[in-house]
Amino acid sequence: MKPTRSAQPMNNRTGVRIPQGPTRMERDTMGELAVPAEAYYGVQTARAIENFPISALRFPRSFIRAMGLIKRAAAAANHSLGLIDKAQAEAIKQAATEVIEGGLDAEFPVDIFQTGSGTSSNMNANEVISNRATELLGGARGSKLVHPNDHVNLGQSSNDVIPTAIHVAAVEMMERQLIPALIRLRKALARKAKEFDPIVKIGRTHLQDATPVRLGQEFGGYARQIELGIERIRHAQAALSEVALGGTAVGTGLNAHPDFASRVIAMIAKEIGCKLKEAKNHFEAQSTQDSVVEASGELRTLAVSLMKIANDIRWLGSGPRCGLGELHLPETQPGSSIMPGKVNPVIAESVTMVCAQVIGNDATVTVGGQAGNFELLVMLPVMAYNLLQSIELLATASDNFAARCIEGIQANEKRCRESIEQSLAMCTALAPEIGYDAAAQISKEAYKTGKTVREVARRKRVLKEQRLKALLNPWRMTEPGGPVGSAGG
Amino acid sequence: MKPTRSAQPMNNRTGVRIPQGPTRMERDTMGELAVPAEAYYGVQTARAIENFPISALRFPRSFIRAMGLIKRAAAAANHSLGLIDKAQAEAIKQAATEVIEGGLDAEFPVDIFQTGSGTSSNMNANEVISNRATELLGGARGSKLVHPNDHVNLGQSSNDVIPTAIHVAAVEMMERQLIPALIRLRKALARKAKEFDPIVKIGRTHLQDATPVRLGQEFGGYARQIELGIERIRHAQAALSEVALGGTAVGTGLNAHPDFASRVIAMIAKEIGCKLKEAKNHFEAQSTQDSVVEASGELRTLAVSLMKIANDIRWLGSGPRCGLGELHLPETQPGSSIMPGKVNPVIAESVTMVCAQVIGNDATVTVGGQAGNFELLVMLPVMAYNLLQSIELLATASDNFAARCIEGIQANEKRCRESIEQSLAMCTALAPEIGYDAAAQISKEAYKTGKTVREVARRKRVLKEQRLKALLNPWRMTEPGGPVGSAGG
Amino acid sequence: MKPTRSAQPMNNRTGVRIPQGPTRMERDTMGELAVPAEAYYGVQTARAIENFPISALRFPRSFIRAMGLIKRAAAAANHSLGLIDKAQAEAIKQAATEVIEGGLDAEFPVDIFQTGSGTSSNMNANEVISNRATELLGGARGSKLVHPNDHVNLGQSSNDVIPTAIHVAAVEMMERQLIPALIRLRKALARKAKEFDPIVKIGRTHLQDATPVRLGQEFGGYARQIELGIERIRHAQAALSEVALGGTAVGTGLNAHPDFASRVIAMIAKEIGCKLKEAKNHFEAQSTQDSVVEASGELRTLAVSLMKIANDIRWLGSGPRCGLGELHLPETQPGSSIMPGKVNPVIAESVTMVCAQVIGNDATVTVGGQAGNFELLVMLPVMAYNLLQSIELLATASDNFAARCIEGIQANEKRCRESIEQSLAMCTALAPEIGYDAAAQISKEAYKTGKTVREVARRKRVLKEQRLKALLNPWRMTEPGGPVGSAGG
Amino acid sequence: MKPTRSAQPMNNRTGVRIPQGPTRMERDTMGELAVPAEAYYGVQTARAIENFPISALRFPRSFIRAMGLIKRAAAAANHSLGLIDKAQAEAIKQAATEVIEGGLDAEFPVDIFQTGSGTSSNMNANEVISNRATELLGGARGSKLVHPNDHVNLGQSSNDVIPTAIHVAAVEMMERQLIPALIRLRKALARKAKEFDPIVKIGRTHLQDATPVRLGQEFGGYARQIELGIERIRHAQAALSEVALGGTAVGTGLNAHPDFASRVIAMIAKEIGCKLKEAKNHFEAQSTQDSVVEASGELRTLAVSLMKIANDIRWLGSGPRCGLGELHLPETQPGSSIMPGKVNPVIAESVTMVCAQVIGNDATVTVGGQAGNFELLVMLPVMAYNLLQSIELLATASDNFAARCIEGIQANEKRCRESIEQSLAMCTALAPEIGYDAAAQISKEAYKTGKTVREVARRKRVLKEQRLKALLNPWRMTEPGGPVGSAGG
Repeated sequence: MKPTRSAQPMNNRTGVRIPQGPTRMERDTMGELAVPAEAYYGVQTARAIENFPISALRFPRSFIRAMGLIKRAAAAANHSLGLIDKAQAEAIKQAATEVIEGGLDAEFPVDIFQTGSGTSSNMNANEVISNRATELLGGARGSKLVHPNDHVNLGQSSNDVIPTAIHVAAVEMMERQLIPALIRLRKALARKAKEFDPIVKIGRTHLQDATPVRLGQEFGGYARQIELGIERIRHAQAALSEVALGGTAVGTGLNAHPDFASRVIAMIAKEIGCKLKEAKNHFEAQSTQDSVVEASGELRTLAVSLMKIANDIRWLGSGPRCGLGELHLPETQPGSSIMPGKVNPVIAESVTMVCAQVIGNDATVTVGGQAGNFELLVMLPVMAYNLLQSIELLATASDNFAARCIEGIQANEKRCRESIEQSLAMCTALAPEIGYDAAAQISKEAYKTGKTVREVARRKRVLKEQRLKALLNPWRMTEPGGPVGSAGG
Repeated sequence: MKPTRSAQPMNNRTGVRIPQGPTRMERDTMGELAVPAEAYYGVQTARAIENFPISALRFPRSFIRAMGLIKRAAAAANHSLGLIDKAQAEAIKQAATEVIEGGLDAEFPVDIFQTGSGTSSNMNANEVISNRATELLGGARGSKLVHPNDHVNLGQSSNDVIPTAIHVAAVEMMERQLIPALIRLRKALARKAKEFDPIVKIGRTHLQDATPVRLGQEFGGYARQIELGIERIRHAQAALSEVALGGTAVGTGLNAHPDFASRVIAMIAKEIGCKLKEAKNHFEAQSTQDSVVEASGELRTLAVSLMKIANDIRWLGSGPRCGLGELHLPETQPGSSIMPGKVNPVIAESVTMVCAQVIGNDATVTVGGQAGNFELLVMLPVMAYNLLQSIELLATASDNFAARCIEGIQANEKRCRESIEQSLAMCTALAPEIGYDAAAQISKEAYKTGKTVREVARRKRVLKEQRLKALLNPWRMTEPGGPVGSAGG
Repeated sequence: MKPTRSAQPMNNRTGVRIPQGPTRMERDTMGELAVPAEAYYGVQTARAIENFPISALRFPRSFIRAMGLIKRAAAAANHSLGLIDKAQAEAIKQAATEVIEGGLDAEFPVDIFQTGSGTSSNMNANEVISNRATELLGGARGSKLVHPNDHVNLGQSSNDVIPTAIHVAAVEMMERQLIPALIRLRKALARKAKEFDPIVKIGRTHLQDATPVRLGQEFGGYARQIELGIERIRHAQAALSEVALGGTAVGTGLNAHPDFASRVIAMIAKEIGCKLKEAKNHFEAQSTQDSVVEASGELRTLAVSLMKIANDIRWLGSGPRCGLGELHLPETQPGSSIMPGKVNPVIAESVTMVCAQVIGNDATVTVGGQAGNFELLVMLPVMAYNLLQSIELLATASDNFAARCIEGIQANEKRCRESIEQSLAMCTALAPEIGYDAAAQISKEAYKTGKTVREVARRKRVLKEQRLKALLNPWRMTEPGGPVGSAGG
Repeated sequence: MKPTRSAQPMNNRTGVRIPQGPTRMERDTMGELAVPAEAYYGVQTARAIENFPISALRFPRSFIRAMGLIKRAAAAANHSLGLIDKAQAEAIKQAATEVIEGGLDAEFPVDIFQTGSGTSSNMNANEVISNRATELLGGARGSKLVHPNDHVNLGQSSNDVIPTAIHVAAVEMMERQLIPALIRLRKALARKAKEFDPIVKIGRTHLQDATPVRLGQEFGGYARQIELGIERIRHAQAALSEVALGGTAVGTGLNAHPDFASRVIAMIAKEIGCKLKEAKNHFEAQSTQDSVVEASGELRTLAVSLMKIANDIRWLGSGPRCGLGELHLPETQPGSSIMPGKVNPVIAESVTMVCAQVIGNDATVTVGGQAGNFELLVMLPVMAYNLLQSIELLATASDNFAARCIEGIQANEKRCRESIEQSLAMCTALAPEIGYDAAAQISKEAYKTGKTVREVARRKRVLKEQRLKALLNPWRMTEPGGPVGSAGG
């Protein structure tokens, strides 16, 4: 009977069930405690379940996987250094592989809101692997044939393992989920930039009519935002690439072989296909999580980018009749329980909500990042949860945004075309030849009389008709350069 | 085969499974779609599942319950107003009751990151209740014998239902979970304040030795923080007590009977035992969620209070030998995977992590609160999720803090007593009689010579021995008043 | 030669000048230091100037005024309690009055980024008043005839004075600046709500066309937001009304006469015309600033409200030709250095920037609120600065928003009227009679064919013409109630 | 009579004075307005002064300087491109030089809370330079001999100038102020790391006694944080190195010579000695400020680093008698107005308050970063103010932290030494040889009996005395490696 995870808080809010089936007694330094007989986890996990009935939030798959990767590589390294024997190493590696692959996820029931070092989750991993390895070697669960501390945790401390697992999980999720999703989104935007390049439309600054732009230029700007977003995620990966492993309890490396960390880290890096290296300074790496704060800053910058794009898309698609209406967004679902036939920009909205969540997660990470005292920072689990959730959400939302919105967007060319000639900002093109003040006069008069800039300029004969036509050509206005034929244009 | 909710993101990250068993075809305004045959939810929910494969986050139990409360009361009101017949009303009420009680929670698989109005979740509720009610009346699922829009949603729009559900869920969770937990915590702190009242110890300002306080006074301060916290939650409830119901689509109340909202709200208020009233202005109530922003501000203030208490407790219990060591905290679990016998203030740490989460959730709510345009704010689901999570976390963490930490704290009286006489701040008591500057001289000399203030003052004969003794009595220094026997004290 | 305050950081970034004119030597517990001969401030202020060359930020007028109010009332109370003689008291009161009235502002040169208790600023006030009072009694500056600690600061500590000054300054600024500005803004919005009540326009949810609203209803919603905002500020005042005075160094009240605080507080309350009371628990009041965190939460809620209003105003006034164009905003200045004749919604933009600043200030206050350890919270000056700045900014921005934008807004009635008949959401009014699904069919067909809902409904003959006309009456759709003549409306 | 800037808000809160001396009349597209006769600024600045009486906050020196750099280089480029004549160019360059050097700072009175594009400040610069240049050419102020738009602003728009100025100012301040201050701080920490390397002391995790570290290792960790901080600032500079210039009004570059931007940017880069390049995509560069959000994220990461260091320093120096007392911090000023002789860690506190401010500024920047719509982001001034303030504060606080705290810290070696032998965590060193469980027994017994680990281990004879001595050697425990002589050590 293993704890389950429920999102429903009110009745049985933390999803922790008192074992009601058969149990075994286990003992740790604080005494005896009953553990579900069939559980791979042991007494320290059981204590943590009892101690932290706070939430339904658990470490995500990516983190459990990272823990398995660390423990497997640690066993290999410790064996290669002559510190554990081959049978132990093989059993630990096999058990850790099962953790890596997800088969033992239900054995990780400890709440995110636990000890600030994540020791409960490190011991959880140690116990699960110890018991599974013990079983593989023919021993009984709880017998510690393979010992959770002396063997599985050898050369490690929660204080270096947990930060390392955060970095490994984050770097891998960025590589495998977030960057691919961003590449897809960037491509989708770039394709639209190309497709919409011929469509000239009104530009808007301060929400007010400005000089023309091409719809493709707007999408090109979005594509560039995501291109920069990918660079930002690459920078976040680099920031996280230094890992704490090797520092053990307080950064000194006590009880770890001097070659242990470098071997383990090299194995993990190879496994996940990302750069990782031992922290240049283990005291920095364990008593702070500055690099997680920095990485979270990059994630929230990406969120800010997505917010801009999603908002523009929503606004450009507003209407269908009483809004800007320059884009047709793909219809995905009925929009209202009361207004029949209404269709809303729901995919873009879901993106903006993800952005709001990521910005809040970043605030949590920033509070967490201030919780270091002396040799340890004690908000590791909550920082892990928020950082990894942000990566996950940005990945799924970016992918979904591309798939269900951007890729299917169509331009309302007619609407785009109509608006330009009306714009008073057309007079900007005249300013280099007639001066700012005279151009402003034309704009003011056009506004008052309801006429276009072209009409007023013509009437005022400020320039010859041919020159006027050349200057007021909307397409030309979407490229750099001053007056046609001038040095600037 | 219903969607399940998994916290493991990497493999099948959103936990949404494509129906593989038997299905039924349903149709909405966008066309046909297969729905799992056995599902109570219908086509619009199915579309939302497809459209929003973003996260494993779902509306919590408290919110689903609130949706049920609204739909049940709406059916009763609509029947009493002659708008639906008795059989329909009874069937809807029965189905809604099942939603309220949690039996149909698995039928609510829509992601938090969905349409910003929560329409998908409103339609989810409408569909589940419609199908269950249809079934109760002998109809087939999907047959709309009881129609999700025309009957279940009658007089409502997502735009008034979802904000109302947020308010109802939050107010009820505060009443049933958070306030009771805070009362327990306040009582535990107040009991310790009384128990520790006789223990005089060093006060500390700027982390530096200051004049004495009684340990009970420190706990009295904490108790007062929580007492004020309860008042803050009461204020948050009041802020949330105005609900949007009755405004329907855009705040005008179109398609709702003028008496509908007041009847529904009265029924819900009675059910949950909390004050609720129809919004004084429905445009404000639907196009903003200012009151949620305000309530979230109160929650994060409570988080800030808890952060102070948890930090003080951790510090006062630091040691056991090389820290302040003025408190013994209950031992709850082994503290280290590498340092045998270490015990850490893990409960207090879990509280601080909850506080960090609540502060971040508040940031998300604040971003969400800025997302109103014209008649609707389109970040309702993410605001709901964060607000309700904050309430939940503060409730469980406060309760656990009381139960597993505060109630079992013991004072290290010996340590407390030792420190006072050493403190240079003892000279403060002399200042009213010998002046600030002379008192400072004594302090400086005591620091330089390693002596106590009493020793130096005695040597310098600044006052008679008896007077010195009276002034330097630590207990006296923990009460208001100037020099003994003076007008001031 | 007194320090000046410059906003220009790069050359002489903190505006602190080393005294170059004549100086006098002063001595404190750390030794001798030169002080400008003509300065009223003394040696401790001079040390603080040297120690904190961080920024150009200083305590604002409102805070200095509050310090003066406290010191004046303290002198009166101490005299009435027989602790200082009449001449001293009168001189202190006179000097404090000059501080209150602003005549000595240049004597307060200490940086915000100083000691976390604000002791430097408390001593600054003590020294300025001491020297000015000494002068009034015919003594020389620096002679301590009226002693800064023994007389001016009698019965006080920075640890109770500075929090008290924050509360006093905030409560008074709310009363005298913020609430009047909000009242003006609320009235301006309410007047527009009345003026625009006859104007029916399209409602918008998700930025998409929805059922009609009256322009006056939208402004009524804004007015209600500000009405609630005023209530929130009133709540913030109540939260701040408990003041720390009386606790002295660590909350125990050592060296203060038991009646001192209540007398002082009563005098200040009377002076500023706001409710104030002695903290129920002095340990809470000095070791936390939870009430400042709470008050800041109310201020940022108000900022969120203003953000919504300012954004709506900007959007409704967007155009003039290619936007929504439903409002004409007052023109205040040329909008572009390059686009002649452009006019932008700059007042609304300045409001949104104030909101951004207040939200950030709130984040600073929240970090500050976590800085309590044991008997003191050591981020008081930065909390003060941000809280008071937020009040100030919200006051001036609200007033300016009313004066230069809201009061001069005019409706573009033509534009409003045009859009309604086009809206597909008109079909909502038909749903109660023909059902949601049939109504949706009409909407879909209208969208596809470019026709109006009325045209399609007529063609489909879903209802008799007269009934159709009654249902599709836009005005009727802006009021609660179902189909005309039905029970619902 | 020029506006002055006062930090005192209550009486004349925005520091704006209505001109009372002689005036001249000027005209812009909105009509006539009186401008102080002697002012270099003109009518649009005067309008902005009137329109935005919001705060005492102004653009800092660094920003005004950057504006001057842009305008000077623009004149040079426009002349080299044949667009303005030599006399105009020289006059503009001379006037801009005066702006760069600070001589005209008082001519920049426009509030931060103005138009969201900063157009008022761009026109302010255009007007000041235009009038000063006009004067240099013998013309009258206001005569537009050198025209603010047609000449000074040629090839530019506020929409590309203001973002460029933000980037230029930030990059230069980082180079000239922040990085040098960080280098000083890093060096100071590194020197202390070396000086304190021989001092072994207790390590602390979860605030609880852990295995030993060397005091120098702790300072080495801090030095590494700052070393990484410098890398983060370098990354922020790189993020900001792409500038918007060349996009003019909407990103298309209309009215700017295609070679204009690259020439201007090269000149500025050379002038400030930092890398700058034209934005790869001008639409991204003007409609977002993602790079400012990213840079702000790096600044707040640095703030989080400093918070850790400052907190550790405060705690390690706590006491002097009843705290941890492992460090002696330099005494800088008396600490209390009521407790004579008290000395507090005020420099460290001022650093933590700066960190709080920077974290809040980052929140403001993040809100601002979401304010992009279409071709422009309209919270530029408030983003500029907060970004530049953060750089400034981090620079001055880091420098001051080094100068007045770190460089003067002394270790309390005696205190450090005493604590180690007492620590129960000494048993960690035994675990590799006797196992985790046996080691835990020793720790538990030592705790219960008040003995040391060495004493209990000796009594229990778990290892030979010589071995025990080797393992329990504190110095050895501060280096990586398992049991002495083992493969691991």
